[in-house]
Amino acid sequence: MLEELLSSYDKNLSKHGIDGERLASRLEEISKIGRLESGGVYRQGFSKEEKDAKALVSKWMTEAGLTVETDAAGNVFGRLIGQDDSQSIASGSHLDTVPAGGNFDGVLGVLAALEVAEAWQANNYKPQKSFEVVIFTDEEGARFSSGVFGSRAFMGYLDDDLLASLEDDKGQNLSEVLKNYGSSLEAFKKVSRRDWTFFVESHIEQGKRLEKQNLPVGIVSGIAGQSWLEIEFTGLAGHAGNTPMNDRQDALVAAGQFVSDIEAFPSEFSETAVATVGKFEVLPNGANVIPETVKLIVDIRDIFEESRDQLLNKIHKHAETIASDRGISCSVKRTSSVKPIPIEESYKKELKSILDDMGIDSLEVPSGAGHDSMNIGLEIPVAMIFTRSKDGISHNPKEWTDLNDIVLTTQVLKQFLEVQMEK
Amino acid sequence: MLEELLSSYDKNLSKHGIDGERLASRLEEISKIGRLESGGVYRQGFSKEEKDAKALVSKWMTEAGLTVETDAAGNVFGRLIGQDDSQSIASGSHLDTVPAGGNFDGVLGVLAALEVAEAWQANNYKPQKSFEVVIFTDEEGARFSSGVFGSRAFMGYLDDDLLASLEDDKGQNLSEVLKNYGSSLEAFKKVSRRDWTFFVESHIEQGKRLEKQNLPVGIVSGIAGQSWLEIEFTGLAGHAGNTPMNDRQDALVAAGQFVSDIEAFPSEFSETAVATVGKFEVLPNGANVIPETVKLIVDIRDIFEESRDQLLNKIHKHAETIASDRGISCSVKRTSSVKPIPIEESYKKELKSILDDMGIDSLEVPSGAGHDSMNIGLEIPVAMIFTRSKDGISHNPKEWTDLNDIVLTTQVLKQFLEVQMEK
Repeated sequence: MLEELLSSYDKNLSKHGIDGERLASRLEEISKIGRLESGGVYRQGFSKEEKDAKALVSKWMTEAGLTVETDAAGNVFGRLIGQDDSQSIASGSHLDTVPAGGNFDGVLGVLAALEVAEAWQANNYKPQKSFEVVIFTDEEGARFSSGVFGSRAFMGYLDDDLLASLEDDKGQNLSEVLKNYGSSLEAFKKVSRRDWTFFVESHIEQGKRLEKQNLPVGIVSGIAGQSWLEIEFTGLAGHAGNTPMNDRQDALVAAGQFVSDIEAFPSEFSETAVATVGKFEVLPNGANVIPETVKLIVDIRDIFEESRDQLLNKIHKHAETIASDRGISCSVKRTSSVKPIPIEESYKKELKSILDDMGIDSLEVPSGAGHDSMNIGLEIPVAMIFTRSKDGISHNPKEWTDLNDIVLTTQVLKQFLEVQMEK
Repeated sequence: MLEELLSSYDKNLSKHGIDGERLASRLEEISKIGRLESGGVYRQGFSKEEKDAKALVSKWMTEAGLTVETDAAGNVFGRLIGQDDSQSIASGSHLDTVPAGGNFDGVLGVLAALEVAEAWQANNYKPQKSFEVVIFTDEEGARFSSGVFGSRAFMGYLDDDLLASLEDDKGQNLSEVLKNYGSSLEAFKKVSRRDWTFFVESHIEQGKRLEKQNLPVGIVSGIAGQSWLEIEFTGLAGHAGNTPMNDRQDALVAAGQFVSDIEAFPSEFSETAVATVGKFEVLPNGANVIPETVKLIVDIRDIFEESRDQLLNKIHKHAETIASDRGISCSVKRTSSVKPIPIEESYKKELKSILDDMGIDSLEVPSGAGHDSMNIGLEIPVAMIFTRSKDGISHNPKEWTDLNDIVLTTQVLKQFLEVQMEK
């Protein structure tokens, strides 16, 4: 990996104390932890692999002069004491991955934040406020099928009912997982947030917008809130040969029309809205049986809550209209609704100004994926910076981001953090 | 079952030597063979249960004065010698069932044919030609997932390649299955057709057309030929949040549009044509992943080959058009094409005249399902008579046909056979 990272690397980008070769070698070292023979890596949340990766980065933090603390959820904080230590600004991401995941998702955000601290130390720059490099636990949710877990614990968004319901793929509950991890449920419940006044996360884009515009880095315009509609169309099964076309209640024809129709809806409400049916199951699913039931999930996202909810309502109503027109039944459940996080205009303007100075066109990119920033942003101002992803691929061994883009992202992050420190 | 059959029985329908109570008690006796505790019956082709049922009916055949022969495929023939024994007319069906099947599918056709022979014997009516009551083996195809098996063997439609490829759910090949059944592959390959000049099958409708018109019995207008199109739409997987709506190649949106569009096509070509997508699989099928692939099967049927093939071509072309319009790819394979069997007008007229005399409105009903008649009909003239099915349900423990309707069907069958005998 190191060789590939360095192969097209432009050394001139390493300046102001930011060292591309260090970033590359750290990416390489982390990539070895949880590497799979079959390709990709797997560092499940609360696993030995995730813990080893955190320990490695903690060692680098300590070497860089940061004070490292870990909370009972496993979240790691490396603090660089500022001129005023009564409050702090934070940046970071996560080191866990999905099964057979890639080497940049999460890792980039942690290493970029640490690299800023390294640069400041090298430059003898002591920020106005303290700075924390953070590693959140189990962002991907691969442990309990429940994402952004560490940042939710950090913000106090996990209630006892949810905690009691958690079970991992080995049948362990949260208490057992925490015990094996070296923590305890009692301590976990006491986890609380820190003295942050601002949080910024850099992350790979996981999309192709930057690549299509040939831009190394972009300004996140907002983090989309995801809502799910779980829809079940129920018609009547029947013999494919003996049921005339005009006497059918075919759940698949209804669901097919629905999926095809809603493709046009998002653009009616917002440029950034999307609606996707990814999960779709037909029953009984026999070639010569008219489908009785289709169960599907519509994943609806936008960075604006109002347009997201308008879209959601239109899609919900359309399912009912189709079912009613076709004389079949339809149930719609609204599940998994997450609030979108808008990014304040002032942060976008500051980032634009930094990019202008660097000669990089500013592109605002909505984040369709969830991130730890989504939890933090509910109560603390946040911003995000995206780095170009090759072919938009993520959660996959093929995930790739060029070192030059990572270095440029870190330069942007550093300048942006300095603007925040000097406010 | 017997009690339920007799509960609404009208004794006045038993005349001309046809005995409703005998039919009911025989239905009851057969229903005990392979009865499942969980409901329904299972008499798999070439199983002990199917063999026991054939043995029971063979005993009744012998008692009725018929000469019983069994071929090496297990097909049973009970021959009533006519005035001229140089050729014969046959009627019958099958005794095997699908797993958890019902008590009328197949059984009705065998017992009705036997009942005609019983009535002729009781009336001292010696038909002009000989008459054979036939029980075909493994019509449902539950043994080798290959339907109308006994009648295919009988007609010589099984080639060596197919025979060599057969394997049942226990991993037994045809040779082992036949050996356990008391036959052999060598003998099986020598199975040949008999001296039939005509074959008529009565069967439950497995649809609701007769029930909707409140008619006990109907004239089959033709046996639909089934063709399959196996279609695979392939787009591009992507993150449901990070891929803009205008940059997607969503295989499910394409397939949804396809399924929804083709619903209107059959009526353009024929009143009896149908097209059904029953099997439909989405990959990778994750709620937050844009579907990359949809695999589906279109089951296309009509009783006329020309209109069936026109419909098939239009559906095939439409899949390619949608894929091309959406910039995704699409593969279409034509599999499992069966020739439709039209029923000659003269037979329909004779049946209509019999129904007129009985005061029953004539309804022509296409057979969308396959039957043994489909194989016989490729080279020997055939006709079919349908009996009303409650709620159109078949292949299910809830399958039901009233005894009155069975008796009326047997009366129609008897008169129709007499017309053929006297030709």
